[in-house]
Amino acid sequence: MSTMSHPEPKPLPRPSMTYRGRKNVPMGTSDVDPEDLPEFEPFEGAVPRGPLDRGDTLVVQSVDLHMDQNKAAHRTNHFKHDALIIRRGQVFTMTVTFDRAYTPKDEVVLEFTIGHNFLSDKETYISLNLGASTGNKWETRKTVNGNTVTVDIKPVADCIVGMYCFNVIVISMGVFRTKRDPNTDFYMLFNAWCPEDEVFLDNESQRTEYVLNEQGIIYNGETHNVSQRPWNYGQHKRGVLEACFFVLNATEMPLDNRRYACNVARRGSAIMNSQDDNGVLVGNWSSDYSMGTAPTSWTGSAEILLKYKHQNGIPVSFAQCWVYAGVLNTFFRCLGIPSRVITNFNSAHDNDGDLKTDIFVDKHGRMDRRRTRDSIWNYHCWNEIWTARRDLPGVWKARVWQAVDSTPQEMSDGEFRCGPTSVRAIKEGELCMPYDGSFVFAEVNSDLVYHSTNQSGQTEIERVDTAYVGTKIYTKAVGSNGFEDITLTYKYEEGSAGNLAAMERAANLGCVGYRSTPQPTNLTIEIVVPAVQLAQNFNLILEVKNTSTEQQTVDLTATCNVTYYTGVSNGTFKEYRQTVSLGPSSIEQVTIEILAVEYMKYMVDQGTLSFTCVGKIQENSQVVTASRVVRLEVPFLSLKIDDKVRVGQEMSVTLQFTNVFPITLTKVWLRMEGPGDSGFKTKYYNTINSGASLTWNELFVPDVPGEGRVEGCLNCPQLSQVCGMLNFYAQP
Amino acid sequence: MSTMSHPEPKPLPRPSMTYRGRKNVPMGTSDVDPEDLPEFEPFEGAVPRGPLDRGDTLVVQSVDLHMDQNKAAHRTNHFKHDALIIRRGQVFTMTVTFDRAYTPKDEVVLEFTIGHNFLSDKETYISLNLGASTGNKWETRKTVNGNTVTVDIKPVADCIVGMYCFNVIVISMGVFRTKRDPNTDFYMLFNAWCPEDEVFLDNESQRTEYVLNEQGIIYNGETHNVSQRPWNYGQHKRGVLEACFFVLNATEMPLDNRRYACNVARRGSAIMNSQDDNGVLVGNWSSDYSMGTAPTSWTGSAEILLKYKHQNGIPVSFAQCWVYAGVLNTFFRCLGIPSRVITNFNSAHDNDGDLKTDIFVDKHGRMDRRRTRDSIWNYHCWNEIWTARRDLPGVWKARVWQAVDSTPQEMSDGEFRCGPTSVRAIKEGELCMPYDGSFVFAEVNSDLVYHSTNQSGQTEIERVDTAYVGTKIYTKAVGSNGFEDITLTYKYEEGSAGNLAAMERAANLGCVGYRSTPQPTNLTIEIVVPAVQLAQNFNLILEVKNTSTEQQTVDLTATCNVTYYTGVSNGTFKEYRQTVSLGPSSIEQVTIEILAVEYMKYMVDQGTLSFTCVGKIQENSQVVTASRVVRLEVPFLSLKIDDKVRVGQEMSVTLQFTNVFPITLTKVWLRMEGPGDSGFKTKYYNTINSGASLTWNELFVPDVPGEGRVEGCLNCPQLSQVCGMLNFYAQP
Repeated sequence: MSTMSHPEPKPLPRPSMTYRGRKNVPMGTSDVDPEDLPEFEPFEGAVPRGPLDRGDTLVVQSVDLHMDQNKAAHRTNHFKHDALIIRRGQVFTMTVTFDRAYTPKDEVVLEFTIGHNFLSDKETYISLNLGASTGNKWETRKTVNGNTVTVDIKPVADCIVGMYCFNVIVISMGVFRTKRDPNTDFYMLFNAWCPEDEVFLDNESQRTEYVLNEQGIIYNGETHNVSQRPWNYGQHKRGVLEACFFVLNATEMPLDNRRYACNVARRGSAIMNSQDDNGVLVGNWSSDYSMGTAPTSWTGSAEILLKYKHQNGIPVSFAQCWVYAGVLNTFFRCLGIPSRVITNFNSAHDNDGDLKTDIFVDKHGRMDRRRTRDSIWNYHCWNEIWTARRDLPGVWKARVWQAVDSTPQEMSDGEFRCGPTSVRAIKEGELCMPYDGSFVFAEVNSDLVYHSTNQSGQTEIERVDTAYVGTKIYTKAVGSNGFEDITLTYKYEEGSAGNLAAMERAANLGCVGYRSTPQPTNLTIEIVVPAVQLAQNFNLILEVKNTSTEQQTVDLTATCNVTYYTGVSNGTFKEYRQTVSLGPSSIEQVTIEILAVEYMKYMVDQGTLSFTCVGKIQENSQVVTASRVVRLEVPFLSLKIDDKVRVGQEMSVTLQFTNVFPITLTKVWLRMEGPGDSGFKTKYYNTINSGASLTWNELFVPDVPGEGRVEGCLNCPQLSQVCGMLNFYAQP
Repeated sequence: MSTMSHPEPKPLPRPSMTYRGRKNVPMGTSDVDPEDLPEFEPFEGAVPRGPLDRGDTLVVQSVDLHMDQNKAAHRTNHFKHDALIIRRGQVFTMTVTFDRAYTPKDEVVLEFTIGHNFLSDKETYISLNLGASTGNKWETRKTVNGNTVTVDIKPVADCIVGMYCFNVIVISMGVFRTKRDPNTDFYMLFNAWCPEDEVFLDNESQRTEYVLNEQGIIYNGETHNVSQRPWNYGQHKRGVLEACFFVLNATEMPLDNRRYACNVARRGSAIMNSQDDNGVLVGNWSSDYSMGTAPTSWTGSAEILLKYKHQNGIPVSFAQCWVYAGVLNTFFRCLGIPSRVITNFNSAHDNDGDLKTDIFVDKHGRMDRRRTRDSIWNYHCWNEIWTARRDLPGVWKARVWQAVDSTPQEMSDGEFRCGPTSVRAIKEGELCMPYDGSFVFAEVNSDLVYHSTNQSGQTEIERVDTAYVGTKIYTKAVGSNGFEDITLTYKYEEGSAGNLAAMERAANLGCVGYRSTPQPTNLTIEIVVPAVQLAQNFNLILEVKNTSTEQQTVDLTATCNVTYYTGVSNGTFKEYRQTVSLGPSSIEQVTIEILAVEYMKYMVDQGTLSFTCVGKIQENSQVVTASRVVRLEVPFLSLKIDDKVRVGQEMSVTLQFTNVFPITLTKVWLRMEGPGDSGFKTKYYNTINSGASLTWNELFVPDVPGEGRVEGCLNCPQLSQVCGMLNFYAQP
């Protein structure tokens, strides 16, 4: 045996921080304040004494990122941002110029890092050896031309999205690294144009709509009377890209989780609301928005995101569902994930994921608010993203739309977030895959169950309506300002074989509704209402139809409520009872006069009127019901551009509004959003009398050629959802 | 047509609270401060004028809940609690005595309510009509005997667990209700004895162990040298039942979600830790516990739960994994869910659900702490509950053990909670079902990957160890103080067909490890260590074996660390390098002297020594590695009972300890937990000199006959996990 003793190396310093005995180095969660690396790292045993002599080691003189060419090829030239922005899985080009001709003997490495504590195994550290023809993590191809080397680099299609730092390393007796230069930092986005990317979308007009389009339409109102508002996603506006990565960093998600759109969406849906974490938006459904901006007052996402970043992460006040969906949509499109905002009409909520929404009526047919906990929202907005799902089995891995919802709802697995969940799986009733499938399934598929309570407190089910919830689901159509009805992507036709099979599968996983068939009646009630403007008197008609060959007498009770768009009543302003006798096969109409003075005192923002009519047939004690929600129409804002629009020149936009209502409007906020970096304008009026008109003029300077849009919005306690928009074309 | 106009009812009052326009009545989440109901509710139109004349309406004179008989039948007589405690799905009996004989004409209803805003459709309001033979939600059978009616009631097997209020209603011209009496409030628990209950466990000795046994053993130490500590679950101690329901109420889970053990476990795992919510326990792995009680200092769960309730929900300091698991186990057993604490040795953590734990070594074979983020815990404890899973498809619905973990870990879907997840699904690699399957799978199945870093910063994989993680999984055996090895319930044998299939399925869902086979070497290193006491000097032996027919020379580097039980290093106290030449087929031993003075200055609570040896073979540049964790043994505490033990009489317990270590112990906390309501004792010593002994005597008063146990524990900064226990039998 022969052993030689080495001198013992000097003891290692005790680490200054132990991360509380639980962790070694924490994984980076942010791409800001990137870690600097030394400009020279000598090899061991080669520590130079005296001044460093680089010998004939190559020296980097400049790096050209070919900004315009790369941005055009990667479709990121719309971003108002000076840095390079590229999409993963797609070649970009850079040229490095040295102090002398590059030879195959020179060892040059391109080094890409993201955040702190980068690690090559976590894909936060990428080094590309220019000498190697294969073996680099990202494909490279170089062209040498004397002192310059031009390199085509293709990042892998599942690399981390975020801000990368870039260095050139020359290796001789140590590692010579270029001095840290923030000008060569660049952003990496998801790539819907790359077939290897999980978010690949194989249709150019869809990619243009769902990634690049800034000008959205969000549907609202109620199922019989759909309305809409413009929404400016503004993902390319100056500062919005940084704001979106600020939000992504705020999720504190380990950097390598950012490789997957599903993770980004899951965490993104949690960070959009201020519950649980200091998320982007504070929800408020109270009608009191004096401590912030009313949800109905925003014109788009950019103002909100910029404010959140400017406030360094203090939540912005206030939001309701379309604001959450609008801002989350900007976040997705900005990061390159195809996404859209959808609106589900008659959306079931607050029912803990079971499939029934229980409505209790007392013996007068009035809704018993003490017992009725569930509610149906007139509409609810959420998002869809287009991505593959590596975490799901078999056929569910394929790229389909995935529902994501950031509105803080009652409870989704105990937290305020929801999804992503495969829309196709919702349709099929396959609800046990992550995340929150049963919650979304209930939103579009719940049954409405009417209960009545007898004298000793015991309740009976009177009627079940299986078709009331999820009546239609709309999203903006591709390439136009019209809508696309996507209801059939969420559910089969009511009563079809596919529908029954999906319900069966869902029931097997604990999503059980009432599958009973309501007993048939020979008497029906229909509530007929004309189109009604806010603050108008009108007549409501109960149309009662006897389809039997017998005489029938029915005791009718109609209850008239003002409700929030969440279906929650703010007060019953009228009750009306009448007994109607109908001969065989006859129709009777009962007319009820509804006066503005009756309902206006209960009015809330986006207030709707909700009518319920319960009829008890004297002859057989059967109960018939009818419900109808009525949106009170408000006018659109009129916008006008005075002249031809040219890039770099002022354009003048005029907003006009006349108070056609018989009431005075108070505390009126007007908002306009137009092109250019300072495109957010607001104006305040203390009162606008009945009949009065206002004209408001603002100047904008378009900064990109092509199509653009100006959005306007008026908001006051008496009147909300008053919006307008105007498209323009900016000449270069 | 003939219509008659009714008088309009008076307008309803405007609701005083709108719940911010989002909700109607909020669902109850708590069973405390139950809502009172009026003693008389007249029927409409029957409002009596003048003093109420009850006529010959039955009047309830008394209610007998047959406390002893029901508690014995429901196996709840161990609870130190005055109220009735029953298990669902099982008949209990009550007798109602009236002022006159009950006749079939009398309409009597038994009314059970839980919490506020109770609703019959949410199962929070149950009314049982005594006259009905069928149609009641809970089965009833009555025996009439003159003035008394004895009723057998069988609550459904999936009813809500919690505290119910009880009233008797007599209906004549209105509802006459018994006056609210807190003495008839009763608790409903899960029922492992009921075949219809989802937590049914078809084995009496298992039910006795997993629901009724208070005296636990929790395993710790390291895989080569397993140790244990006693843990008193104390689920039957006075106040613990209320404390457990206090915790359940603190989850703010809608009451009807309590019907399912899976929901209780999911929310329970979140509420046990103080992250995200004001949960029960504050985690602390820092070795500084001056602001609370050291995790190693507790003897059981009861003291913690009682303190949490007493403090009205302020988290208790401090916990590490076995404390979380111990308290959560008490919570489950107290509520009637069969549960156990398990210990996984070499538990992979902090690796975001992928299947590899990356260890970086520098060119000297030292672990590179800057790059090594992941860690392997020497052991980690979590819980299992026995329940069916209605929310899972097909075969996964069956009753099996489900893993639940309340230790706040790195990240499990972004939150501090984990599970429940089917242990059988973990074994099969079926990881896409809720909740957190891939996280638990990684804890028991990760590969250990050794990376080395070359000069230009690029890393290479040197070795992969597929068998290091999840070496064994232990739980206390049924009916004894021995252990049961349940490793094979979590994983197939390494390398078996079942193991490969499970890995394949997991990989298909994104859980990908390194499946590469390490290159074979003809040289192995083994680290041989004797059993070592804390503060002892000892010799470590590197046994190097050349199995080739050639001469081999290997450069060895051994690194010696003090590590937390979480695998995180608190400092390298020694490095040793030596080159060894081995002839063909020969073995060489290298002896390294390890001195207590070297490692004691880095010592932390539960500190272990970890040795890593890396050898580079000069002839072929191959790398061989060996790792070994060494637990430093500490003595057990000696406990002695001086006399015969009788219920109601003082028993004297003596704890003895001698400081056999060459160091002075400072700030020493002693703890004893014994029978009786005031069974928690503590004692403090400022110093215990080397060689000194202490004797501590305490009196306890056993309050239940039968087997019992006293636990003792000594804790100080120099010494932890010093415990003792002593079983006794209390004569009636």
